[in-house]
Amino acid sequence: MPTPAIAVHGGAGRWERDPETLGRVQQVLREAVETGLRVLNSGSALDAVVEAVKVMEDSGVLNAGVGSTVDLSGSVSMDAGVMYSRTGRAGAVAYVKYPRNPVVLARYVMELTDHVLLVGDAADLLASRLGLERHPGPLERVRRMYGEAVQRIARGEVPQRFYSRSISLWLSKFPTGTVGAVAVDREGELAAATSTGGVFLKMPGRVGDSPIVGAGFYANRCAAASATGIGEFIILYHLSLRAVEAVCNALDVAEAAERVMADFTSRFGRDTAGFIVIDRLGRAYGAYNTQAMPWAYGAGGRIELRGL
Amino acid sequence: MPTPAIAVHGGAGRWERDPETLGRVQQVLREAVETGLRVLNSGSALDAVVEAVKVMEDSGVLNAGVGSTVDLSGSVSMDAGVMYSRTGRAGAVAYVKYPRNPVVLARYVMELTDHVLLVGDAADLLASRLGLERHPGPLERVRRMYGEAVQRIARGEVPQRFYSRSISLWLSKFPTGTVGAVAVDREGELAAATSTGGVFLKMPGRVGDSPIVGAGFYANRCAAASATGIGEFIILYHLSLRAVEAVCNALDVAEAAERVMADFTSRFGRDTAGFIVIDRLGRAYGAYNTQAMPWAYGAGGRIELRGL
Repeated sequence: MPTPAIAVHGGAGRWERDPETLGRVQQVLREAVETGLRVLNSGSALDAVVEAVKVMEDSGVLNAGVGSTVDLSGSVSMDAGVMYSRTGRAGAVAYVKYPRNPVVLARYVMELTDHVLLVGDAADLLASRLGLERHPGPLERVRRMYGEAVQRIARGEVPQRFYSRSISLWLSKFPTGTVGAVAVDREGELAAATSTGGVFLKMPGRVGDSPIVGAGFYANRCAAASATGIGEFIILYHLSLRAVEAVCNALDVAEAAERVMADFTSRFGRDTAGFIVIDRLGRAYGAYNTQAMPWAYGAGGRIELRGL
Repeated sequence: MPTPAIAVHGGAGRWERDPETLGRVQQVLREAVETGLRVLNSGSALDAVVEAVKVMEDSGVLNAGVGSTVDLSGSVSMDAGVMYSRTGRAGAVAYVKYPRNPVVLARYVMELTDHVLLVGDAADLLASRLGLERHPGPLERVRRMYGEAVQRIARGEVPQRFYSRSISLWLSKFPTGTVGAVAVDREGELAAATSTGGVFLKMPGRVGDSPIVGAGFYANRCAAASATGIGEFIILYHLSLRAVEAVCNALDVAEAAERVMADFTSRFGRDTAGFIVIDRLGRAYGAYNTQAMPWAYGAGGRIELRGL
């Protein structure tokens, strides 16, 4: 019987915040893994990744759920996706503003509808009809960051084009902080979930990789992955799909994952992405080409913090 | 120097309409190929697939652009995507209601923004700001079909669940009619484009495979593909990506494409999907597991109609 295991991440990027914030992030990752392990005692990998991501969405210290960043208009809009090997199905939502926990809504899309991806006001309407908890709006910290950015834009420190490459480069100074979880349960089934507030100052309506099957998340009976980074590149590369396929039946999970990461970097450059991947034997690895990607791993009561 | 070539499709599904409609569909496919070939005389593969898809969107006889079907609420909402090997970039829009030609908006997303996928009211706002032509609303034919469906639902002929598997099966009696184009230009660059009104009576906000890179469309320097069918399955399988990878460097394009189609069918059953694919030598093939998938091929002044 397989040993249940779970890995979670708090996003690839620059993690040069104060030590207090970093400590809090590690604390949240630990809580997410503890929650996931508790669920895995009796529940499925699907239950585990959703509950673990929920912990991170609720934390307010990562860019997902409550802690989500804002778009160019100052609004929170979020993307999330989930996939489960037992059914081979996936569910995802994008450009949603209503739910506090987009990952929960993504699971409902998978289980209550025939569809895989539901977006915009229609997805928000579903969240409200299902009675999901409502998002409280951007945190004070996020509102301040937005106010400062708007002032810098007004002072002409940022090119005035619609949504230019230069704005993206300027933005890359901020950590992304997307969250994700991958798990294997006692029955050897795997699941993956990813949730994000997206890129700070993105165009309203922009959808990144997090709700795209094979890009931001992927799970089959062999492995599961959750990605983070510049969503546009991850979509073009199908990073989670390629990570799962590389790790599938690999003798050395770390080596296989690093090979995928190196190939991605050769195409899109450094400081662009990262992912966590787990195989059906519970072997997990976090690969990233950024300064850091805090992630945590738990199995058999043991929890390890990595990537910082 | 490569010979420019283009292939277009009008959607996999049941094509049991009257001979007059079928004749009109073939006429539209021929016009789309003629337009594409004319563009390829001096323009790029990207120009060619966008113009060819535009012809099909404007035709009103296929489920895209002007001829788009409606969702459960009776509204037209459309998805489209485009990809170009020269830049390796892609652009897509989903759940858009404003533009008459979603494929044109998808191209703008690719060329004017840093993003790949833009959705909902925000994408519609971009379309309006760019001065794109506005969608005229559902055709009389589509409105009549919707009215009949609503009556059948009211009479209890369709299960009343939210959006159930049974509704989908009931729906499968209708042809889908998604449109797509793939082309190779004189410089050996490839492009793919796909556009659709989605599934008749879909949940509002549902996004299918058409705007998802690697699912509804994909192009690299080796081949390009456009898919059609049950979007949810195509998303889970990454049908266009797999078609491109299979055909890439294959000795026999038809055999490689049929192998992908057979694998897809073994997983999701018959009557589920189809695709067209073209390689850099201009060899094209249309594979489908449905009753029909009207498609057309053009190169060197010669045009062939197939798939019916």
